[in-house]
Amino acid sequence: MKQDVKQGVLLYAGKAKQVFSTDDPELLWVYYLDQATALNGKKKVAIDGKGTLNLHISGLLFKELAATGFPTHFVTDMDNQNMLVRRAKMIPLEVVVRNRASGHFVSRFNVTPLRVLDPAIHEFYYKSDALDDPFMNDEQIVALGIAPRATLDTLRTMADQVNTWLTARWARAGIELVDFKLEFGRLADGTLVLADELSPDNMRLIDAQTHASLDKDVFRQDEGPLVPVYAEVLRRLQATQQEVHHV
Amino acid sequence: MKQDVKQGVLLYAGKAKQVFSTDDPELLWVYYLDQATALNGKKKVAIDGKGTLNLHISGLLFKELAATGFPTHFVTDMDNQNMLVRRAKMIPLEVVVRNRASGHFVSRFNVTPLRVLDPAIHEFYYKSDALDDPFMNDEQIVALGIAPRATLDTLRTMADQVNTWLTARWARAGIELVDFKLEFGRLADGTLVLADELSPDNMRLIDAQTHASLDKDVFRQDEGPLVPVYAEVLRRLQATQQEVHHV
Repeated sequence: MKQDVKQGVLLYAGKAKQVFSTDDPELLWVYYLDQATALNGKKKVAIDGKGTLNLHISGLLFKELAATGFPTHFVTDMDNQNMLVRRAKMIPLEVVVRNRASGHFVSRFNVTPLRVLDPAIHEFYYKSDALDDPFMNDEQIVALGIAPRATLDTLRTMADQVNTWLTARWARAGIELVDFKLEFGRLADGTLVLADELSPDNMRLIDAQTHASLDKDVFRQDEGPLVPVYAEVLRRLQATQQEVHHV
Repeated sequence: MKQDVKQGVLLYAGKAKQVFSTDDPELLWVYYLDQATALNGKKKVAIDGKGTLNLHISGLLFKELAATGFPTHFVTDMDNQNMLVRRAKMIPLEVVVRNRASGHFVSRFNVTPLRVLDPAIHEFYYKSDALDDPFMNDEQIVALGIAPRATLDTLRTMADQVNTWLTARWARAGIELVDFKLEFGRLADGTLVLADELSPDNMRLIDAQTHASLDKDVFRQDEGPLVPVYAEVLRRLQATQQEVHHV
């Protein structure tokens, strides 16, 4: 793991992260912003400490997931707000997995909140701010040349593997994984890897006992300050971290 | 074919048709309204003669399609505005098939109007006025118990069969089939049949030479009176009808 790379130019400014080049063409430098957004960026607030918390949650989960052999873009965390990742050509799809109904799945289909969906549902959204990330079915994605069918099948399989591992990992921390969004990319050699981040910005998490929200819904629905919630999530992950290494 | 049934009570009032019981429990009486709606009913106008034209177009196509052996609910047209059909338990899905990009497919994905989609794309929409007929993927439909996966596979296959036949049938009339919406139901014995109607209310049709609209888009987009357009469509169908019987 190379930790001596130099930060380069800004390549991409996202809603929660900025991505920079480095002096190694195969590595990227990701800066986790102290910022929360919702409604596809229409709601945006600066929140001190959020970047660091997300970086630590994401780093911890990427490290543990990678240790199982699952391919990810993660290399190492540099400090409290920066992470080094492998450069990947992103597939412009958000892969959503739902274990229970929540969010706009509930309003769109008028189903009971937290209704169990077994087997879990997969949904693909085309990453396009201009088009407001439209929901697409497989045939639309293939016809418009966004991804071939074989890639969609692989994304579903990989998302299921992440779901199995992540559901168990959160359960050890007394947390239930309701739904989550993944993004994937291809390394220069074509390997498909999990990219983006693994944080409560991209997952719905509820306390296994109380069902209280432990994710960005707290911000989306103005339920209170976000930082103590994310800090609690990180604390629980860290408190249950040893079990991974000793199993 | 029974033509001596008596019209019963109103069972269902749709946007373009009313459905009545008859004295035969296996038959329904469908009244084609002189009415056009768009935007899921938000735009609604009375149009003299439209019901009769749609009935004749729909009846002609159902008759010819049924003659190929394809299962439909069609029994017979009673007069200029009423059709007798077999009672079917409707599957609450709109099955959309797109041969070319048009309508909200164009705006949603910012693609060139009339871009060819080969193979054709299938889309399922859940029939629910309250939910505004949401677009769904297969996994959502299965998880929410709207239809099992095997039924979705069958619906795709049947829609493809209709597409193949209908594309060729319109081509003989100098018309290209851009996209269309089908609805299916099950007879008492479980047989899946094509139901609803086969008219320019539920298809996008363009003149094969000029690409002028020959369907409800004329009404949706206020391009002029609808009746002369539907009359022209019926005229072309009737003018090319003999070929079916003699092939």
